[in-house]
Amino acid sequence: MLQHYYAVIMAGGGGTRLWPLSRKRRPKQMLSLFDERSLFQTTVARVRDLFPVDHIYVVTVAEQAVELQAQVPDIPKENYLIEPMPRGTASVVGMAAVVLAHRDPQAVMAVLTSDHYMANEPRFRQLLQAAYHVSQDGYLVTLGIEPTFPATGYGYIQQGERLGEYESMDVYRVKRFKEKPDEEHARLMLASGDHAWNSGMFVWRVRDIMEEFRRQMPKLAASLDEIAASLGTAEEKAVVERIWPGLENETIDYGIMEGARNAAVIPATDLGWSDVGSWDSLFDVIDSDPDGNIIMGGRHVGVETRDSLVYVNQDHRLIVTIGVENLVVVDTGDVLLVCQKDQAQKVRQVVNRLKEEGQDYL
Amino acid sequence: MLQHYYAVIMAGGGGTRLWPLSRKRRPKQMLSLFDERSLFQTTVARVRDLFPVDHIYVVTVAEQAVELQAQVPDIPKENYLIEPMPRGTASVVGMAAVVLAHRDPQAVMAVLTSDHYMANEPRFRQLLQAAYHVSQDGYLVTLGIEPTFPATGYGYIQQGERLGEYESMDVYRVKRFKEKPDEEHARLMLASGDHAWNSGMFVWRVRDIMEEFRRQMPKLAASLDEIAASLGTAEEKAVVERIWPGLENETIDYGIMEGARNAAVIPATDLGWSDVGSWDSLFDVIDSDPDGNIIMGGRHVGVETRDSLVYVNQDHRLIVTIGVENLVVVDTGDVLLVCQKDQAQKVRQVVNRLKEEGQDYL
Repeated sequence: MLQHYYAVIMAGGGGTRLWPLSRKRRPKQMLSLFDERSLFQTTVARVRDLFPVDHIYVVTVAEQAVELQAQVPDIPKENYLIEPMPRGTASVVGMAAVVLAHRDPQAVMAVLTSDHYMANEPRFRQLLQAAYHVSQDGYLVTLGIEPTFPATGYGYIQQGERLGEYESMDVYRVKRFKEKPDEEHARLMLASGDHAWNSGMFVWRVRDIMEEFRRQMPKLAASLDEIAASLGTAEEKAVVERIWPGLENETIDYGIMEGARNAAVIPATDLGWSDVGSWDSLFDVIDSDPDGNIIMGGRHVGVETRDSLVYVNQDHRLIVTIGVENLVVVDTGDVLLVCQKDQAQKVRQVVNRLKEEGQDYL
Repeated sequence: MLQHYYAVIMAGGGGTRLWPLSRKRRPKQMLSLFDERSLFQTTVARVRDLFPVDHIYVVTVAEQAVELQAQVPDIPKENYLIEPMPRGTASVVGMAAVVLAHRDPQAVMAVLTSDHYMANEPRFRQLLQAAYHVSQDGYLVTLGIEPTFPATGYGYIQQGERLGEYESMDVYRVKRFKEKPDEEHARLMLASGDHAWNSGMFVWRVRDIMEEFRRQMPKLAASLDEIAASLGTAEEKAVVERIWPGLENETIDYGIMEGARNAAVIPATDLGWSDVGSWDSLFDVIDSDPDGNIIMGGRHVGVETRDSLVYVNQDHRLIVTIGVENLVVVDTGDVLLVCQKDQAQKVRQVVNRLKEEGQDYL
């Protein structure tokens, strides 16, 4: 195992893109979509070979901590860091950085998502190993994903100068971070061959990221210093809870990475990655039957049914589909979603509407 | 009210075309689709002005009789005639005819369906009055429906010589009965202007229909005579149950009407009729909202949802539809049907498949 290497899993999201299956109190990382394990459990299992269990940290919100601890009971309880409230990934990374620096000033942290899918797990570990070595040269490393279609739902990273090969992987200086593009720009970037998707996963030495916080987000850095000073004292919890609500609500991408002096990217190929960000994305990661259908749970009778997904969490329910194509049917008992596949991103609109109307089902 | 006039409502069907809402033990006539009344209750209410309640008969099967009696308690119990088992409409009509003839040799019987919809009920009563008068001239009268589209799901009746006007309605001799046509023939018949749909409803004097039974179905007629002889005796029930299983399984259309000597048809216009024979047919009889949707029960949130039907029988269920068009969604708790509107007739295939597999849900 690599010295001073720590995983920081961000598991506080309350994502609603797999609604109605994902809910406020049962976000995507807690769901079992591919096997009996939740995405969070899979995330931990994926990196166990690289990190001793006490080197694995989880940042989450109080309401989710108990369930996550129950799902992976061997991560030490003190490694669960609690965000008092959502304040963006910059604050999450900052808190984790000061906690790690307090324990191990030489710490290298891998900031990992908790709810992504990867078909090729050895490849991911290779990527984390390469990134570790790149971080030793002082870079803030972004784990890139080789784009396979002109996605408009992800940010892109343009590669600059090639920095060399680490663990048989090509590594580049970051030329530019780009926000989610429109369809046309997505096509151009895909065709260019020098763009990767931004996976939202990063590797860096804590001292390097703290330096960038001081340079680019000095107010947040000062707050983090206050938290750092309280660590291990009786006031720790009170200080975090006092400071947290006043923090800037900012993402690490926008707050730090876009302006970082030494950003590197490793465009990972053959990772079989998906952010499982919408119902239609399941078709990328779950094998469908000969008619192109994915049937999860319940009993299904299909007549002229193609390229559709049926999810039911009640075994006795019979689902009959006739003459449908590219349809997503998700039945959670209290809610039934019927959605054309290419409109799956509009689930978010519905969730927002329910929120505004003060409805349940969230 | 017209003298010696009786209604015979055929309510023994176990139709499955509105499955999963209609079931073996809850066939279409027992369903409430348009208001709080069942189709059977609506059928009775529609003709109350024409028939004293003791002139209304119901033919059904034993399993349905209790529920039907509960739905319309003021029809005398002895007016419920029980088919020991399904043996086609010829036998049903025959049994009703001998029962009526036993009570009133001058009886005129109106054979009515129990599960059809009619928007214009006064028009239907006018039709029944006209048919009564035509029957007095010795005709077997078919209630026709003016076709409004080239339906392939109904039989057609070609009009011959005009017999005259009865109650302001034109009446024709039947030239020919035609089985359910293919699309091309349906178009031709619609264009011809001299074809009506066969509604499966008839009016005749019992003595005329008995004569036709003797001429065209002598075996059935002999069996009916045996039943007639037992009426009012202690053996009545035993005789019916002994004879019934051996009866020819035949429809009145094929067994009698196609070869009838004096068949007349009254093509009813403006009846607003529907046999409610499939989920898509509900669009003909229920007003849709401005997006063309029919939402029945539950709570519905639609995003880009058009010309679709959502039926749920659980008030607390939230149904969300996104990007769907011409879709039928029917949720009965144990079964969820999702069906493209123009494939609604394939529900029957599914029901047959479940039957073969010995599954529940029927």
